[in-house]
Amino acid sequence: MTTPLRGFEVGEYHARVSRAQSMMARAGTAAVLLTTEAEIRYFTGFLTRFWESPTRPWFLIVPASGPPVAVIPSIGAHLMGQSWIDDIRTWSSPDLVDDGIGLLAQTLRELNATTVGVPSGPETHLRMPLASLEHLKSRGITVRDDAGIMRALRMVKSKDEIAKITQAGAIAGRAFARVPEILTKGTPFDGLFRQFQMLCLDEGADNVPYLAGGFGPNGYADVISPATGVPVNSGDVVMLDTGLTFDGYFCDFDRNFAVGHANQAAKDGYKRLIEATQAGLEAAKPGQTASDLFTVMNKMLTGGTDAGAAGRLGHGLGMQLTEWPSLTAQDHTELTTGMVLTLEPGIEISGGYGLVHEENIVITQDGAQMISPPAPPELQVI
Amino acid sequence: MTTPLRGFEVGEYHARVSRAQSMMARAGTAAVLLTTEAEIRYFTGFLTRFWESPTRPWFLIVPASGPPVAVIPSIGAHLMGQSWIDDIRTWSSPDLVDDGIGLLAQTLRELNATTVGVPSGPETHLRMPLASLEHLKSRGITVRDDAGIMRALRMVKSKDEIAKITQAGAIAGRAFARVPEILTKGTPFDGLFRQFQMLCLDEGADNVPYLAGGFGPNGYADVISPATGVPVNSGDVVMLDTGLTFDGYFCDFDRNFAVGHANQAAKDGYKRLIEATQAGLEAAKPGQTASDLFTVMNKMLTGGTDAGAAGRLGHGLGMQLTEWPSLTAQDHTELTTGMVLTLEPGIEISGGYGLVHEENIVITQDGAQMISPPAPPELQVI
Repeated sequence: MTTPLRGFEVGEYHARVSRAQSMMARAGTAAVLLTTEAEIRYFTGFLTRFWESPTRPWFLIVPASGPPVAVIPSIGAHLMGQSWIDDIRTWSSPDLVDDGIGLLAQTLRELNATTVGVPSGPETHLRMPLASLEHLKSRGITVRDDAGIMRALRMVKSKDEIAKITQAGAIAGRAFARVPEILTKGTPFDGLFRQFQMLCLDEGADNVPYLAGGFGPNGYADVISPATGVPVNSGDVVMLDTGLTFDGYFCDFDRNFAVGHANQAAKDGYKRLIEATQAGLEAAKPGQTASDLFTVMNKMLTGGTDAGAAGRLGHGLGMQLTEWPSLTAQDHTELTTGMVLTLEPGIEISGGYGLVHEENIVITQDGAQMISPPAPPELQVI
Repeated sequence: MTTPLRGFEVGEYHARVSRAQSMMARAGTAAVLLTTEAEIRYFTGFLTRFWESPTRPWFLIVPASGPPVAVIPSIGAHLMGQSWIDDIRTWSSPDLVDDGIGLLAQTLRELNATTVGVPSGPETHLRMPLASLEHLKSRGITVRDDAGIMRALRMVKSKDEIAKITQAGAIAGRAFARVPEILTKGTPFDGLFRQFQMLCLDEGADNVPYLAGGFGPNGYADVISPATGVPVNSGDVVMLDTGLTFDGYFCDFDRNFAVGHANQAAKDGYKRLIEATQAGLEAAKPGQTASDLFTVMNKMLTGGTDAGAAGRLGHGLGMQLTEWPSLTAQDHTELTTGMVLTLEPGIEISGGYGLVHEENIVITQDGAQMISPPAPPELQVI
């Protein structure tokens, strides 16, 4: 596989804006106001790790027609100036009196957009102080819901987006293939975490925003804990779950490794997870729903009871580690070509401990394809 | 230096809650409601990279008296159960109908806290969907400002917090000391970024949430850009700025390196930055203000004009890469013992290109101490 290009052709951004504006016209939305990293990058390509700093608010306006307008702190002017966005308005931030709100309100008025839609539904938040939101309202701006437009847009990935996610997955796959270099009986778990992140970088990750895992003879009690210095024992099943990025796009999958040997229940549980994943993969076709995938996988895992502590059996994936939709009984989002999902079945082995397996797939017109490099059909012993 | 313990003694959390509740009593606040990673971790010690997933909201209530109450997705129950928090209420998230709001409202009513304060001022945001905020209000909960309580609490660090930040800085210092291993004429900048992150991990970082940098004969046009594959030339000044973490606490400082040689303007500019940093360090005493530090440093850098594109000359540091206060003309926050700050002077060399230097300091009763390992007084040539 050749390495995908960095960034996107400008046509990709034009297409995104055009789709947004069509949806906005149907919903009667005069402008969409965006404040978070992924939302702003979606239309601009503005890629920086500076979002790690919570200090400054950033704004992007997608008007009913015409290109987006960036209203951003001056520290971002040079980098945003390298994007396709021409209309970039800046202020010196942080400003304790008016941190961009006056400039934002004035820009919205110029764009005849005194009513704006902001993403307000599940999985969203507004990245600006609540006091600034009140300030904006006091300047005559009405804030309403974006009618789900951002969710609908971002849930379906372009060919170039899928290539970046696939590349991230290939990098993680090479790192997972090298786990035998760093994992043996007695390895402290936190040292393993450090070494695994180094392998991800060595194999080409831009950065490694996410790593979680667990270990034990019957698996692990949760899948979100950081590592401690406790060493891995012979007979433990070790799980590493990574979300690394390539050019701002995530993979998100895990791999399980038995150290020396594993008990029969763990081996059987692992096989069940592989079968459930395969069933999910086969069921994933355009026209099916997120809840259909949940039902197929859950039946194999539990006979049909609830989804367990994780609350779902997979999710969307892209510019963020997790995106819409969720594979739950409740989420009836229809699968369409271009959606990228994780299948993430879990199974209890004993007393609250269990295993989780995760793969990344893309929906195509002919069904689904795995984009994470395939896991072994039986629990790998190293 | 011995490695600081992981986590905190429970007494540290008791002291934090006690200080919060004293401030709440003075402000007449029945409860503080927290939704972001740093805020929730501040009172619970709940440390996980799972916040990378935007899907699920998390809530912590600090009532007027008694211990905090966690209202969280069930996926977090096991990890939160290992903290000192006893009252942990969970729901299966994501839930498209009610993602924790009913449980949150019921819990607040039980605590006689139908009016809650949330952090609303500069550098804050509410990490929950706006629609959920409306849902909460519709359940009879009034949401107001937290009266700056979280800001006041978190701005002053304990001895154990300072030890963790210092440890993060020591790790970064060792990684910076090894840059000559990975940087030479012709090194692609993105490869340097990967290698430097590997060095940070190798030296003991838990993870490397932040890395930015730039390079050129006269420095760089911004300090927030990601790396491209462009190779470094002889005569370039290369800057790497990292925020790595140890046990959930950040360092945040940079180092500049000249490759082979540097022009005189760059060498002079670097010395000016070191002098400005030293002046800031000497001025940083309890009773002085953030704006006093700005004034002292800015006078040396520009003769007293504005702070340039960055908008400030340093900031607070701790559980987040950047925290309150800001070293600006406008921020009159009084410095007190236990504050951890960065000093981050920048200087233009030519045509919009320049250098930035950054150090981390702690305010003590006798003045300030540098906690990042000292930078060379002259621009280092490698």
